[in-house]
Amino acid sequence: MSNPLQIGLLVFPHVTQLDLTGPAQVFSSLPDVAVHLIWKRIEAVPSDSVIALTPTTTMADCPQLDVICVPGGFGTDELMLDEEVLEFLRKQEKGAKYVTSVCTGSLVLGAAGLLKGYEAATHWTAVDALPFFGASVSRQRVCVDRNRITGGGITAGIDFALTLVSMLINRQAAEMIQLRMEYNPAPPFNAGSPETAPAEVLAAMKERVAPAQARRLEFVRRAVGTSI
Amino acid sequence: MSNPLQIGLLVFPHVTQLDLTGPAQVFSSLPDVAVHLIWKRIEAVPSDSVIALTPTTTMADCPQLDVICVPGGFGTDELMLDEEVLEFLRKQEKGAKYVTSVCTGSLVLGAAGLLKGYEAATHWTAVDALPFFGASVSRQRVCVDRNRITGGGITAGIDFALTLVSMLINRQAAEMIQLRMEYNPAPPFNAGSPETAPAEVLAAMKERVAPAQARRLEFVRRAVGTSI
Repeated sequence: MSNPLQIGLLVFPHVTQLDLTGPAQVFSSLPDVAVHLIWKRIEAVPSDSVIALTPTTTMADCPQLDVICVPGGFGTDELMLDEEVLEFLRKQEKGAKYVTSVCTGSLVLGAAGLLKGYEAATHWTAVDALPFFGASVSRQRVCVDRNRITGGGITAGIDFALTLVSMLINRQAAEMIQLRMEYNPAPPFNAGSPETAPAEVLAAMKERVAPAQARRLEFVRRAVGTSI
Repeated sequence: MSNPLQIGLLVFPHVTQLDLTGPAQVFSSLPDVAVHLIWKRIEAVPSDSVIALTPTTTMADCPQLDVICVPGGFGTDELMLDEEVLEFLRKQEKGAKYVTSVCTGSLVLGAAGLLKGYEAATHWTAVDALPFFGASVSRQRVCVDRNRITGGGITAGIDFALTLVSMLINRQAAEMIQLRMEYNPAPPFNAGSPETAPAEVLAAMKERVAPAQARRLEFVRRAVGTSI
């Protein structure tokens, strides 16, 4: 690995900001690290919410990374068909120690052909999309398969990043960051997965996300259709 | 309450970005809400890490909020002495339904005189500072005392925000957001609080944060000394 450690997170329009800001908080706590926010341009990019994210470098200027991470969000639909992004990921993969994602970011890795034959995690509403890319679905919160490390939905990014720090450095480095971040979670309710959410909450959420799921599968099919 | 719900998060130099971005992700998921990022100017503000945060409004232009929230971070030291910020908080408190904080943001509420006689939470390294402002220390992850809702360190912002949504709207609204965010945390280690962290991790972190703690107490003493 280079020194300092080079970690890059992809930024793109309509990224789910916590997919990125959670891991960014963890990685930035490392003592010897350069964290890059990467997009086509360095102007601020709108996220899914009130937070605008300002890239620190472009794909063209980005150094070879030790870790490349693709966060998720509705914007991953377009990314699955964006050859400039897919080519950047394929190029980085060749020299990266770890190729990673949070939430639906794994679908972009899949569209780049980087999850063929791998097990991977994604947001619970997107598990039906992964097999199109030759990946098998993990329902673990953080899935480690060789050097592909993929996290589940949104908040799983924090668990993912701490796991990755323990692999990059060691367990104590991850524990130091966990203590600093007071990551001793106590969700006030038990609705954080389709397995534990109250039936009416799950039914309402399924209805709400159905149009986005249909749109996503349409993009997945087009991505698969255009790939070699 | 006004319609839509007006929620404002204070942005400031060296804010711990996850203190703000975690709750912002939760609040932005509400169907009828305006989330404001508030600072003196609307130019991007550096956080504690690679993330720059772009305010959406100034303190002068900010409407009366239903919820005012002060996140934490090293930048709260200076805020405790910033009369413009303290006066903004005092003014908002008069019309707000909830006056809230994450992490060391509670010290800024304290410096504004808004926690006198209240129980409040803060980052575990800052619990000795709260009593200077007439607050009693809660070691709960989310402390609810009348309309003051204060969260513990950094990641506690997510638990805080879900709790607040359940109070602002109802439990099901919070559960919907929890499910969407797949907030079913599974920390890979058990080091998230001083009570559970391995002894050597706790000792190393205490040594590392000692200078920042000493600096903070110096600012607290000055803030108490200048208040009426």
